[in-house]
Amino acid sequence: MEMWLKEAQIKDAAMTYKVKETLVRKKTNYQDLTIVDTEAFGRMLLLDGIVQTTIADEYVYHEMITHIALNTHPNPEKVLVVGGGDGGTIREILKHSSVQKAVLCEIDAEVIKECKKYLPEISCALEDERCEIFIGDGIKYVHEHKNEFDVIIVDSTDPFGAAEGLFGGSFYREISDCLTKGGIFVAQTESPFYLPDVVKRVYKDAKDVFPITKLFMAGIPTYPSGFWSFTMGSKKYDPENADISDKPELETKYYTKKLHKACFVLPKFVENLTC
Amino acid sequence: MEMWLKEAQIKDAAMTYKVKETLVRKKTNYQDLTIVDTEAFGRMLLLDGIVQTTIADEYVYHEMITHIALNTHPNPEKVLVVGGGDGGTIREILKHSSVQKAVLCEIDAEVIKECKKYLPEISCALEDERCEIFIGDGIKYVHEHKNEFDVIIVDSTDPFGAAEGLFGGSFYREISDCLTKGGIFVAQTESPFYLPDVVKRVYKDAKDVFPITKLFMAGIPTYPSGFWSFTMGSKKYDPENADISDKPELETKYYTKKLHKACFVLPKFVENLTC
Repeated sequence: MEMWLKEAQIKDAAMTYKVKETLVRKKTNYQDLTIVDTEAFGRMLLLDGIVQTTIADEYVYHEMITHIALNTHPNPEKVLVVGGGDGGTIREILKHSSVQKAVLCEIDAEVIKECKKYLPEISCALEDERCEIFIGDGIKYVHEHKNEFDVIIVDSTDPFGAAEGLFGGSFYREISDCLTKGGIFVAQTESPFYLPDVVKRVYKDAKDVFPITKLFMAGIPTYPSGFWSFTMGSKKYDPENADISDKPELETKYYTKKLHKACFVLPKFVENLTC
Repeated sequence: MEMWLKEAQIKDAAMTYKVKETLVRKKTNYQDLTIVDTEAFGRMLLLDGIVQTTIADEYVYHEMITHIALNTHPNPEKVLVVGGGDGGTIREILKHSSVQKAVLCEIDAEVIKECKKYLPEISCALEDERCEIFIGDGIKYVHEHKNEFDVIIVDSTDPFGAAEGLFGGSFYREISDCLTKGGIFVAQTESPFYLPDVVKRVYKDAKDVFPITKLFMAGIPTYPSGFWSFTMGSKKYDPENADISDKPELETKYYTKKLHKACFVLPKFVENLTC
């Protein structure tokens, strides 16, 4: 028998993956959590049937959501991740020696537990002494912490259902208050090919709050369309034009200092979403 | 009944598309030719079961395989397309007013015939008086024309079976002889995520022939991994550093003059394939 998993990526088109083994499949208090071992991409985490991360290509997302923001800030010491229970973003954050504390605020303890068990390559840094795990609602956490973090990374699921409140103006205002004076915010913000309206709205909402708002892109094979957007809001430092020449070279597979600048140059139809 | 088409993108992973209608399905002298109307991407051309182009996202491929090369050359007058029977590359070439003649050398007349019938948005320019269609083998055509074209675009299927001879050193040497003094060559060269060895080999083969060899990338949702590579060989003009400020703005949806430069900045793992 062959087992194939199917993930709808856009209405009436889907990706299918041949599955070697289903490692976890459970309903948590918040979502359906599945970890499978696929032939093509190795182990894969799905939440509510949507691919979150795979061993084969996780590095792109985790490097790009992290290093652009952390290298833009001259001295990021305290960093908050909202969501991101797999731990990949924390792993990348802790590559920066300036970071003294990286807080992971994840609503679903089961995600952390199962990723620690089945995705150690990704979750490894959650045991680091500079990492602090807080199980709870990201919106509440951000509201209760003012002027505290140099960088906030919103490493959430898609803007439907549980994570809906993590996209939009009212949350971005709370984020701004939670950031320090020169603070920087970054979030994953979907595929401009498939969800141009979401990209456009999120960019506008961020722009209403932050003096500097920028969108950048990266190629991620297992995300819908394979070409993904991230939106940044910054109080002071322009990520596209930051002088990062003195920043140490990081051990990465996707991010480079040259790409740090180039990834902000957008295809025309994406540029048009930011006008 | 629902009809779904399935395209293997990498071993043990596939894309599936819901099909409204099958418009053509035939065996030509060279390949299986299929045109379907899909719900998500509109009409779609497949050769030997591999997606070649769709109405929804064809603009990325056709703009990027064309405008980087034609804008790099100061005055492209004669351009050759090897393959590309759908006509999309010819359509983009003819946006450049310097072009006096665009030759399409396609081995399979059936591709042209069916694309003219079912994909007029893409094939429209094949009727232009500056376009000359030659039905025959691209390798033979290139061999028989010396010092003739300012730009040669290899718009082929994948490097297996019929199109295998269009990838590799001996063909690139013929291409070089077929180009004029300042001539430029560009080819689609697969996904570095899925076929890194092909990308590496093609780049090396081009580098052995051309004084300037560069690789660039673009996001194409219906191509495997969604992030595609193109390889350029140039006798004189460096595409990445070309002064294109005087070139007219083109009507495009993906290409911009800023992206012309930025698309050459590669993810680290791709950069490593060019070392």
